[in-house]
Order: sequence, then structure tokens, then C-alpha cells
Amino acid sequence: MSEKWMPPIYWDGDAVAILDQRVLPHREVFLRCTTPHQVVSAIKNMAIRGAPAIGVAGAMALALGARSLNAADPQTFRRKFVRICEQVKAARPTGNNLRWAVEKVYAVIAENPGADVLELQQLIRRRADEILTKDVQDNLAIGRFGAEVVPAGARILTYCNAGALATADYGTAVGVIRSAHAADPTVSVYSCETRPFLQGARLTSFELMRAGIPVTLITDNSVGSLMQHKGIDFVVVGADRIAANGDTANKIGTYTVAVLAQAHGIPFYIAAPRSTIDPSLPDGSGIPIEQRDPREVTHMNGKPVAPQGVPALNPAFDVTPSRYISGIITEVGILRKPFGKAIRKAMAL
Amino acid sequence: MSEKWMPPIYWDGDAVAILDQRVLPHREVFLRCTTPHQVVSAIKNMAIRGAPAIGVAGAMALALGARSLNAADPQTFRRKFVRICEQVKAARPTGNNLRWAVEKVYAVIAENPGADVLELQQLIRRRADEILTKDVQDNLAIGRFGAEVVPAGARILTYCNAGALATADYGTAVGVIRSAHAADPTVSVYSCETRPFLQGARLTSFELMRAGIPVTLITDNSVGSLMQHKGIDFVVVGADRIAANGDTANKIGTYTVAVLAQAHGIPFYIAAPRSTIDPSLPDGSGIPIEQRDPREVTHMNGKPVAPQGVPALNPAFDVTPSRYISGIITEVGILRKPFGKAIRKAMAL
Repeated sequence: MSEKWMPPIYWDGDAVAILDQRVLPHREVFLRCTTPHQVVSAIKNMAIRGAPAIGVAGAMALALGARSLNAADPQTFRRKFVRICEQVKAARPTGNNLRWAVEKVYAVIAENPGADVLELQQLIRRRADEILTKDVQDNLAIGRFGAEVVPAGARILTYCNAGALATADYGTAVGVIRSAHAADPTVSVYSCETRPFLQGARLTSFELMRAGIPVTLITDNSVGSLMQHKGIDFVVVGADRIAANGDTANKIGTYTVAVLAQAHGIPFYIAAPRSTIDPSLPDGSGIPIEQRDPREVTHMNGKPVAPQGVPALNPAFDVTPSRYISGIITEVGILRKPFGKAIRKAMAL
Repeated sequence: MSEKWMPPIYWDGDAVAILDQRVLPHREVFLRCTTPHQVVSAIKNMAIRGAPAIGVAGAMALALGARSLNAADPQTFRRKFVRICEQVKAARPTGNNLRWAVEKVYAVIAENPGADVLELQQLIRRRADEILTKDVQDNLAIGRFGAEVVPAGARILTYCNAGALATADYGTAVGVIRSAHAADPTVSVYSCETRPFLQGARLTSFELMRAGIPVTLITDNSVGSLMQHKGIDFVVVGADRIAANGDTANKIGTYTVAVLAQAHGIPFYIAAPRSTIDPSLPDGSGIPIEQRDPREVTHMNGKPVAPQGVPALNPAFDVTPSRYISGIITEVGILRKPFGKAIRKAMAL
């Protein structure tokens, strides 16, 4: 495996280059998007995934949209731009970062009442760049804070991919692992394969191998047995949306891991930037859960792995109640129980 | 999907016909085995799987072996036959039924001290036939007993395949489901796909669809979320080996389901004939756990689904401590806590 590393999303001149994660780890193909619609498609079909990465992609999509908007005056620009914002925001429903990023970019217009169209286009591009850069900085901070709570020599379990590939770079949960491993090379990782999309098998293993961090792949259903045999010391996962009380939506299966961690007395941490927090939701019951095509479960590489016509469920996410969570590792520090208070304080910083 | 149903293993003249479960549900191919070695291969490569089915296959393999044994006298026969018994018994280590069936067949020799070689060959074939027939009868009894504890209209979760395909016919856990559904057509089933071999996706869904029982396929990692949303009323699974205290080895992932069931207050039942019980083991810690080729995890249909060279674990089974088990449904009734006493009583019947 080659040692080069390209961030999963970056500006390639005036285009947005997106690493097509659907064909990883076998091939590294970048999609070159020149329209917001192309970026939205890449989000919908999961060429790019991971809540922070989707947020960054959404911001960059808006910069693409703003640039090519045909508007004679700021009012027309705003009217047309808001429609693009709605389309981008609707690309995937569960993650908070996309909503957050779109609102952050859209705010440029209100923040610059005297700006003309060209200035707005430039300011929007700058805002998208800031979101891209800040995501990496946030992940480095998350990594630093998180590494402090990883036990010496820990065998860390992670789920899905909350890595460089799920963010602008470095990763949230994988950022914690990178940072912990840099300080203590005896830590090692178990990566759950994460059905049906196999982000753990295809993406997290790939990232960790490239980073030289020892990783072992396991099926999702073997987590219980591994914990039962005292094989796991620490769990860290990412998040797609965190409610005001700390309830956390993440990849389907996260809740199962959280219940198992609690049953075995193993610390269970969320790693996510504050842009994942949705203070408008009092608890996790209001988080919209995306239901994806059952064919992702019944087929693999286009071939059926189940009888034709069998109904299947394919919820993309589940919600872990905050009582299962030991702490939420953010770029401003680790939030602890009671999460409501800790989240209010963190959001006010 | 056609409605015909062939049992997964039967005598085809003097050969053992084994339905090759590796290519189900896409193709129905029977392997025709004329030597014990061919049956052992079919067990090792999982053309046939499921502890009771493996037990039946082992007994039939011994009948094949006995028939073609070249021995001038009963002493020579016995000496050569014991070697075949050892080879058959070693085909897969975790399930108890194979060991049980081999010992049951081997006992024919001691039970018939005056028999000549031809008579022994006939008696061994008859014993294998009895094991085959009794397995189906046992499953029908398991089904009747089990159906009594399935709540009205239950949404039943099952795991892996403990169906007709895992037995001589009808199934253990699926037998309970068949029987419950016959009495109450409003019951329905969630089938966990069961990575890495996908017995739930490929086999259980297939069987239930053929039987006209409503089934929905889910990924293993979505069990927690489904239970959290009160979508499951009852869990029933099979077993590969049950220790004297009720600790139960079954397909990897069963323990995870058991922990989740307990956390959500959902009844969790084992369905298995007494031939699965190993009274020589005081608890589950002594059950040998087969470790299979990591390629079953890293590859699918021969294609890699993970980076080349990533280490992977592939334990085929895990052990659920008896405290998670509501009851063990056997052919002589449902065993309840304390399991030690109930098992002793059942084994003495």
C-alpha cells in the first residue's frame, strides 16, 4: 500500500475534487465537481460521506453555485442562492454539519449588506475555505483532547469511519486514535466492518494501515464476544448529529456497541466538532433518520446476497442515548455529564 | 421462488445427497457423497452447516465408511472404523451434535458383540437412519413446545440459520417459528444477515419465504436500534453446544443479541435437541471455538472488501452465559433456570 495521502476533498483549481470512497480501498479515483448538483450527487450516492466531510462538501458546493450564479444585483443573487442552499442542505438529512455549514455560508449575505455580487461570490468562497481549514484544525484539537483519556496500551474499538475520509482531513474518532498512537505506539485498533456499506472494512482499515497504526478487522457481530473476552479497553466513534442533551446519532450499529460497552464497563466516547451539535433538538428523538435503499443490504458489488424480493430494512443511523456516553470529545475539550450544561457552555465559547 | 422443498440431506440410493448451502439461495445444487471423506469436506467447507445437520451428516458419513470398509473380522472392522470416526468427529470442533452422533454410531459395535462385519455394516446404517429420522421428530417437538411461549402476533428475531437447512428438516429455532406461525399467522420474523457467511440473509430468509412466513432482513448491527424502538417481542436462536450449566455456544454474534435482549427486557430462547447438550462441560469456558479463515471476512464472492493484507478475526462462534437465556427449548420440553438441574433431569429422560 502506497504511503501518499491526499485529503478526501480539496480545491482543484476552480473545481471541487472529491475522492470517490465507493471504490476504496481498491482504487483511488477523484471526482471533479464543477457544479453544486455534482457535489450533491456525490453526497447522495456516498462517494463522499461522514458528517464533517459532507459539511465541508456542502460549503464548497455553495461556493461553486455562487460563482456561476447569473444575477444582476445582490437581491437577485440572494433569491437564487437560497434555492441552491436548500438543495444542498437536502442532500442527506441526518448529519448536522451539512445544515450548519450551509447556514454558515448563507450568513455571509446578511453579514455583508453593502457587498455587490462579485464581492458576495468572493466572500462565499472564502467562507467555504474557512470551513475546510477549520475542520482540519478542529480535528487536530479533538485528537489532542481525546488522546488524554485513552488508556496506556489500549485496544481501541472504533466503528464505521470517522477518519480523514469522513472529514476534511485527520478525522475525529480516528484523529483521537492517531494522536493516541503518536504518544503511545502500543495502542492498537479493532475496526468493525460496518455493514452494509463496509466503511470500517474499506475505509478505516485503509486509513489506519496507511498511518502505520495496527488495525484488525472484525465483523460487527463479534463486538460482544471480543468485549466478553476483555479484548477492548476503549471505544471511540464519530457522530452525525448530537442533540442538546448529548443523545447522539451515528452510523447504524453504534447504539449496539454503546449498550455492549456499558454492559462490559468499557468507556464509550464520541468524537465530534461542535458543528455536529444541534442545540435546537432537546433530545435524540427528533433527529431525522435516513432510510436508504434496501438493495445496499440485499446486494454486494451488484450481486444479490439474499433471496430475490426479500424485504430488508436499511436505516443509515441510530441514536445512542446520552446515558451510554462517557464523554463527547470536541475541539474545545471533552464534554462530560450532565451533557446539557456542558453542551450549552461549549456552544457559548 | 418455487414451492418445492427437498430436505438438505438425504439418502440418494447408496450415496449421501447434501444440498450445497454455499450457493443458496441463488442455486440449488446437491453434492453426491459416496465416501466419508467427501462428507467431511462438505462439513469443513460449509456446504452443509448447522450443528444438528452436521451430526446427521457425520452419522451418514460413518454408514458410508462402514459399508466400504475392507475387514475380514469384527476386530479389524472395529480398529479401522474407529479411525474413520476420529476423522469425522474432527470435521468441525464447536458443535456437540457431531461428537454425539459419532459416539452414538460407534456404540453399535459394543452393543452388538456377536455381530459379524456385514451385520455391523447394516446396523450402523440403521443407526444413521435413526439419527436422521429422530432429528426431524425432535424438531417437530421443539416447535410444539416453543410455540407455546411465543407471544401473540410476536415480531420474532432470529439469528444465523437454525432452520431446516441446519437440521435434517424443519429446523430448531425456525421450527419454533414454523409452529408459532401455523398457530398464529400474525407472527413475523426479522432475520439477521449473520456476517460473514450470511446464513441469515441467504438461508433463513430463503426458508421462511418458502414457508410463507413474513420475513424482513436486517444487518446484524441494527438489532440494538430495532429493540430500542420496540420492534422485537421475542428472540429464538439455535445452539452448537450447551454446557451442563446452560451456557450456550452458537454462531458468532449470538452473545451480542443476548446482551441486547436482556438490556431491553426481551425474552431470549435457545432451541436445540438434547444432542446439543454436552454434560461433560461444567460451563461454557471449555467449549472449543473454531477460528475460521480471515478471508471469509475480508472477501465476498471471491472479491476483496477490505485492504489487501489487513488482519481480521473470524471466530465462528461465541458463548452466551446462561444468565442471558430465558429458556432452552428441547424435544422433551422447555428447560428453565436453574439450568444445571433442568439439564440433568432432561438428560436422564
